[in-house]
Parts: sequence; C-alpha cells; structure tokens
Amino acid sequence: MYSDPSKIRRVTSIGAGPIGAGWAAHFLARGYDVTAYLHDTSETKAFNLILKTAWVSLTKLGLAEGASLARLSIVTDLETALDNADFVQESAPERLNIKQDLYKKMGDILPESVVIGSSTSGLTMTEIQASCASPERCVIGHPFNPPYLLPLVEIVGGDKTAIEAVSWAGKFYEIAGKAPLIMKKEIPGFVATRLQEALWREALHMVANGEATPKDIDIALMNGPAPRMVSQGQCLAFHVACGAGGMATNLDQFGPALKLPWTRLEAPELTSELRNRMVDGCNAIAGEHSFEDMAAQRDREIVAVLSALRQSRLG
Amino acid sequence: MYSDPSKIRRVTSIGAGPIGAGWAAHFLARGYDVTAYLHDTSETKAFNLILKTAWVSLTKLGLAEGASLARLSIVTDLETALDNADFVQESAPERLNIKQDLYKKMGDILPESVVIGSSTSGLTMTEIQASCASPERCVIGHPFNPPYLLPLVEIVGGDKTAIEAVSWAGKFYEIAGKAPLIMKKEIPGFVATRLQEALWREALHMVANGEATPKDIDIALMNGPAPRMVSQGQCLAFHVACGAGGMATNLDQFGPALKLPWTRLEAPELTSELRNRMVDGCNAIAGEHSFEDMAAQRDREIVAVLSALRQSRLG
Repeated sequence: MYSDPSKIRRVTSIGAGPIGAGWAAHFLARGYDVTAYLHDTSETKAFNLILKTAWVSLTKLGLAEGASLARLSIVTDLETALDNADFVQESAPERLNIKQDLYKKMGDILPESVVIGSSTSGLTMTEIQASCASPERCVIGHPFNPPYLLPLVEIVGGDKTAIEAVSWAGKFYEIAGKAPLIMKKEIPGFVATRLQEALWREALHMVANGEATPKDIDIALMNGPAPRMVSQGQCLAFHVACGAGGMATNLDQFGPALKLPWTRLEAPELTSELRNRMVDGCNAIAGEHSFEDMAAQRDREIVAVLSALRQSRLG
Repeated sequence: MYSDPSKIRRVTSIGAGPIGAGWAAHFLARGYDVTAYLHDTSETKAFNLILKTAWVSLTKLGLAEGASLARLSIVTDLETALDNADFVQESAPERLNIKQDLYKKMGDILPESVVIGSSTSGLTMTEIQASCASPERCVIGHPFNPPYLLPLVEIVGGDKTAIEAVSWAGKFYEIAGKAPLIMKKEIPGFVATRLQEALWREALHMVANGEATPKDIDIALMNGPAPRMVSQGQCLAFHVACGAGGMATNLDQFGPALKLPWTRLEAPELTSELRNRMVDGCNAIAGEHSFEDMAAQRDREIVAVLSALRQSRLG
C-alpha cells in the first residue's frame, strides 16, 4: 500500500527550527523536491539562514544529481504544504497538544499511503498519533543534531503504527542517504540519546562533585573515546580491544568491574544470557572479519579522522 | 628538582602488552630514545608485532624529526632498563602486588628527579606507591587504547605525590604529543573511562532488556554522537546546539528532563550552583568565539571527518 521508497520525489518538511530546516536542507541535497511548511512568514528569515549554512557543508560532502535549492517551496498553509507530498518529515515544536492537533489535521488531509516521520525526541508516537484518524502510517524518524550532517535516524512506531510503515521508513531513509536504526521497542530517549544521556548525567555528577570541569569533560571525550567511536561503536571497540578472545574475554575478565563504582550508574546483573547476547551480537557485527583486520581498519580510520581534523583546524 | 620537560631524551617503557608496546611506539615516533623493559624474552615477538602495526599508523600521521625504530632497545633486566631513563612509563600487569613491588624497586634504583607515570586504569596511585621509598615523583598517566593513536592522557597523583610532579607530567606529555588532562581528584575510572563506563552500562541494560542489540548500539553511536564528539565534547556540543543562549538555555529548558527515565542513571540535583558551574565552564571553553563561528567550525570538522571516513572505507 505504501509506494516504492525509491520512487519518492516530493518531501514536505514541517517546522522552521534547526531540525525542520536541517531536514529540508538534507532532502534538497539528496535531490528531492521539498516543500517547507512554516507556521508563519516571520520564520522565513531564520529558516533560510539555517538552510544556507547547511548547504555549504552539504555541497562539500557532495550533492545528488539535480539537487538544487531552487527545488524548495516555502508555504504557510498546511493543505498547500501537503499537496502532492510523497513523504512528510514533521519537526513541529515539542508540545504534545501541538503535535496531536497537527497529526489530526494531517491524518484527514493526506492519503493514507503517505508515511509521516516525526523528529520528536521527547514524545512517543503512541501519544502523538492518539487523535489521528489514520495512525498506521505515523512513525518516529528521530535525527541527530545537526540533522543535515549526522546520518543517524532512529525509527519506531506507536501502538497503532503498522509494522509495514516502520520497515518502509527504514528503507526510505536509507535511500535518502541516512543511517536508519529500526528500534525494537518504544523506549524514552530511543537508543542514541539514552546512551548520550547516561554519559551526560555522569558528566553532571562529576561537575557537581568538583571532580572535573566542563572543559575537562570535553578534553577527555574529544581525545579519548570519540576518535575511536567514529570508527567502531563501543561494542565492537571492546570486542576488538580484547584481541582474538573478543567480547567473551572482555566480559569474563572485566565483568567483576561492573560492580565497581566507575560511574554512578548501576550495571545490570551480568547473567549468562546477557553475556551471550553481547558475545553473539559482537560476533554478528564482526562477521567474517578477523581481529587483525578489524584492528587495522580501526587504526586506518582513526588516522584518517585525526589527519582530517588537523587539516580542518589549520585551514 | 625535576628536569626541564623539553629536555627529556630517553624514556623507559615498562610492559610488553598492547599498552606498553603502544607507548613505546608513541615515544619512538615523537623522536625519543626508548628502552623497553619486558619481563621475559618470550614476550619480544608479541611486542614487536604491536610496534610494527603501530608504526604504520604513526608514519602516516607524521614522525618527528629523527624518529626511528632503531632508537629502541629491548631489555629484560630492570636495572639496565632504568639506566639513564629521563622518564618512565609503567604499563605492568594490573595487579596491585606486582605494581607495588615494581614501584618499590624503581624507587630504590631511579634518582628521585625521574618522574614515573603509570598506565593503570583500575588502581589508584595512593595504593601503587604505598611501598615506594620515593613516592613524590609517582603519578598516573592513563592513556586510551590504542595509546599510540588516541591523544588523551589522564594525570593524577596519589596521597604522597608532589604537586610539582603532577604539573611536570602535564607539561611533559603535552611536549610528547599527547592531550594531557590533569585531574582534580583521584576518582575511580578517572574522567574518560567513567563517562564511557556510564554509556557502556546503559548499553548493557538495553541489551539485557531486549531494547537494542550490540549492532544497534554501535550504529547509533557511530552515526549519531561520535562524529560530533570528535569536534566538540558533550558540554560544548550542547552549548552550541542551543544557539546564542548556550548552556544556560540548555539547562533551563531541558533541566526538568533530567528527572525523566532517559537512561537508568539518576541525574544529580540541578542546583543553581551546578547550573552556574556548567554555564561558566562552557563559556570558558567557548572563549571569544561566537556561536556562529563555533557552529560553523563544528560543521567543517564533521564534514572533514565524514569525508575522511568515506575515503578510508573505500580505499
């Protein structure tokens, strides 16, 4: 019932803030026709400023064939905005009543075959879709800031969302140049923000206790975990750091350290089930690559990242 | 009493594992004479393998003038290893009795003016230096894996360490091409590992609850927080994401969200003192740079990092 995700031509982006404007820039750069819905013409200036800034970076990364800022229309009437839309990316203000009202209206205006993705970071689709007459096609498609540069989009449906809409969104975002993550469950903060929030709360504890300043926190992150995490997520990084023994060695060796007060976050019980899920999961990421290959690839990528940063900071 | 950190010529690296060998490679690449102390000649092969691997990356990043693998000597006698050492980097096994015994010996052999930095990640210097007759010059200098690539070194003393040794180590590691972080207090896990551990524990919770797989965790980190965190740590990233209002806007707006169950880590009470420390700290990092400049620099660096990764993965 949903159209072929590779045939999508016109995207409507709702919202004039950094997220809405960032999405508009992203879709334009990937060669889509984009209709931007702003609540009011007074928002046009700020919207265009973000668009212009984003376009500089997007041009450097490489535009899709035919991509052009000329393929953007800005409108302030919702019906006009949704006219001929093949997909809608909604980045309205993070207030439940505003979103619910908007989804009620969109549900009446848009054909049921048009998927709507919400950029919400703090609300659930189950709440947002509550008053929508056609909630099956409503999903969350949560980007990471700045949305025109960072590839991640976390996708999850609400209670009334069709599973087909979720998998359609996964395919569409991938075709549209994003790194989609289809979530297993609707959990607050999704995956990336939960992880980032754990780190952030620990950082706040450290500053509160006089153990580190914000500058210390940033020096530590930028020069320690970050250049590696660009190349390998925390799971694969630990898997590879333990050599041929991989995650099994990590958990068997450092498992007891989960009881230590390294952070204020209590670790889960390291049951054999959790251990095996981690080990199997890391083996699945590694696939056929040997430990040596993965370590060498990690090093090549860290070298590339450090060299690129050095160039960028000099230039 | 400690010598000029820019005059250091010979570094002794203790330990044949990935950390000890990684440190040896780093100091060689920065143009130092290096004496590597291995416990036993049987460790030579593994040590040389790590050194060779590291050298490939270090060469790409650019060697210091005169840097050469020929300036390495490998010895298995501790007195010989410490002979003429201007600085010692200790990466012995993470067992307290081994380290205590080693520091006792080194304390007797080495002139008191030679600083010793320990790579320990799990022990405190207060424990390690307990049996050393000259504990004033003993500091922790904790690297991040792989130590030949990631710049971070976390520095902290124990109860008996002289404050001059700590600040000397900060200067020396910086001259030696590292990004030193002098810690305010001796806390378990230091700064970077505590932050990483909070993230890791939350990841384990998610896997235990069936909310995400290890692969999901890694996709989220690599495509969301990581490419930005290379450019800006979490504090400056939030500061800049809030536009001209900066961290003050972030905390005033999202402060209440600290009560939400976004991660299992309870946040500290957002007192006005903590709020001000965060705001002042972020202003200190930002210095004279405007919000626009910082956002533009962030974008340039993310573009550079994403382009470099793309190249590295293609090549």
